[in-house]
Amino acid sequence: MAGDHSDVWLQTSSFLREKERYLVVSHLHPDGDAIGSTLAVKAMLEHLGKEVVLTNESPIPPKFQFLPGCDRILPPTELDGCSFDGVVAVDVADRERMGVVWEYIPADIPLLNIDHHPTNDRFGTVNLVVEDAAATAQILYTVAKVMDIPFSSSLALALYTGLLTDTGGFRYSNTTPEVMEMAASLLRHGVNAGEVADRVIETMSRGQLALLQRGLSNLRFTADGRVGWIWLTRLDFQESGAEEDDLDGIVNYARNVIGVDVGLLFRETEGDKVKVSLRSREIVDVAELAHSFGGGGHARAAGCTLTGSREEVEPMMLERVNACLEGGRE
Amino acid sequence: MAGDHSDVWLQTSSFLREKERYLVVSHLHPDGDAIGSTLAVKAMLEHLGKEVVLTNESPIPPKFQFLPGCDRILPPTELDGCSFDGVVAVDVADRERMGVVWEYIPADIPLLNIDHHPTNDRFGTVNLVVEDAAATAQILYTVAKVMDIPFSSSLALALYTGLLTDTGGFRYSNTTPEVMEMAASLLRHGVNAGEVADRVIETMSRGQLALLQRGLSNLRFTADGRVGWIWLTRLDFQESGAEEDDLDGIVNYARNVIGVDVGLLFRETEGDKVKVSLRSREIVDVAELAHSFGGGGHARAAGCTLTGSREEVEPMMLERVNACLEGGRE
Repeated sequence: MAGDHSDVWLQTSSFLREKERYLVVSHLHPDGDAIGSTLAVKAMLEHLGKEVVLTNESPIPPKFQFLPGCDRILPPTELDGCSFDGVVAVDVADRERMGVVWEYIPADIPLLNIDHHPTNDRFGTVNLVVEDAAATAQILYTVAKVMDIPFSSSLALALYTGLLTDTGGFRYSNTTPEVMEMAASLLRHGVNAGEVADRVIETMSRGQLALLQRGLSNLRFTADGRVGWIWLTRLDFQESGAEEDDLDGIVNYARNVIGVDVGLLFRETEGDKVKVSLRSREIVDVAELAHSFGGGGHARAAGCTLTGSREEVEPMMLERVNACLEGGRE
Repeated sequence: MAGDHSDVWLQTSSFLREKERYLVVSHLHPDGDAIGSTLAVKAMLEHLGKEVVLTNESPIPPKFQFLPGCDRILPPTELDGCSFDGVVAVDVADRERMGVVWEYIPADIPLLNIDHHPTNDRFGTVNLVVEDAAATAQILYTVAKVMDIPFSSSLALALYTGLLTDTGGFRYSNTTPEVMEMAASLLRHGVNAGEVADRVIETMSRGQLALLQRGLSNLRFTADGRVGWIWLTRLDFQESGAEEDDLDGIVNYARNVIGVDVGLLFRETEGDKVKVSLRSREIVDVAELAHSFGGGGHARAAGCTLTGSREEVEPMMLERVNACLEGGRE
């Protein structure tokens, strides 16, 4: 990975060595890669003898709070009075994804942007954007190697958490031999694979359970079982006591049933807006489908927002999906 | 792994080279490790120029039928007229686990027993039993290396399927660095990690979905949310159109909810028998608990069978679990 654009790896390395006080930030509603990458940069910088302040606009979900150093991730309101001469943004595709944290960063402070999103708009002073990395944690693993930073148990744990999250627990198509070799190496540095998977992937909040119960009882099929969909009302969401993150993965249940090619999750939001998540197995390119409604994503996982009542939105969308199935790829 | 008992590795190697016609068998109700290991031995023996017959008492579940050679696994009724001078049993802890296949094996035919179950009773002529292997597929991977058998794409796919299954998709505590290194190596030999995980782990049958819907809607909590349990009636099972295998994993939903230490699945079977699956997170040793009811298992996953009505069995068992929670380990 380091061979491809060696200049930027050198610039990254210099950036992490030449300043004294760093602010590390990731995207709001942080997932395991955002949090793991934040904590990995902390471990690396502290090894280099630097002062580090960590921040995130959103609170850290309970299931990640076992990660050492998580309590050091401050809300931006606590940044007043902190000074820093460098910013490291990890897993952030553009500055808006930082939320209000962006407003706390003076325009003249140099920023190192380390990310793997193809949509990254290179908003940093130095931009280490590696689109074919499975996770930002995978890029940081290479940074640590390039810089000869030893893998302490907390660095290894933070990186493993990021890798595990963004490969869907080594189940997505981004699970390459390099990903597995990195995982093996991190386990050799003391990570307990079973414990991390248990905490990060297997654990369900009560809200998540309540949403899943409602979601599964509302799962319907059409097109001879080739399309499965779930509709969640605002009431479902409120009564579940669920958070935004609790929706993660529910759409997969619709797609995972044998015979289904396209799974959809419709979720009512404010006004008459309906958020639609789409997953497909083989036939339909859901990115193209979502794009035609102003959304986006990948061929197998995409999303868009529609406007209208359930009576309008649901049949219209299902008809479009059916048409795509009939015609092969959208 | 090969270093530990090198005699038996040599005997294994000789066994696989010195005969001409082999029967390969695994346990009934085969899972991914049973099927993957069966197909891996087939690939290895065919590379050595041997004739191979594969058998299993049970049909191969649809989700494994993408594996090349699966259609070659014959029911034992089709073994009449097949002759063989060696038997290879994979992932079989004792001869009863083969079901009726055992009756088709003449007593004078030498048998190679390759397995990782600690309960294996060494029923073979040669017994390659490696208890600390995560999967029988992991033992076969070493056999192939010791014997210098190249990893064809079908051998690699069969082994990866076994490894993936028995590590719970790299989530169980048996996910060691060696497991990850083996996975990396198999991916380098052409396995598509995303595709295999999708087919083997993510895919749900309609029966499994129906059982999960019923199971989740019946999930209850007690002991301040430290115990979660699901009761499935015979009617739930019949109306779901579910198979025995479709129960797999449902008990985990009870255990996975935040705050739960013990998850239970009660399932009514014939007469007034109730099968109980137990999973625990940290506190209760469910193996000891199950053992006190004549069952068994591991500290974190165990099972037993009780006799009685729901009114008798459910409160009695939950009280016992509560007592274990109060007293720490059972």
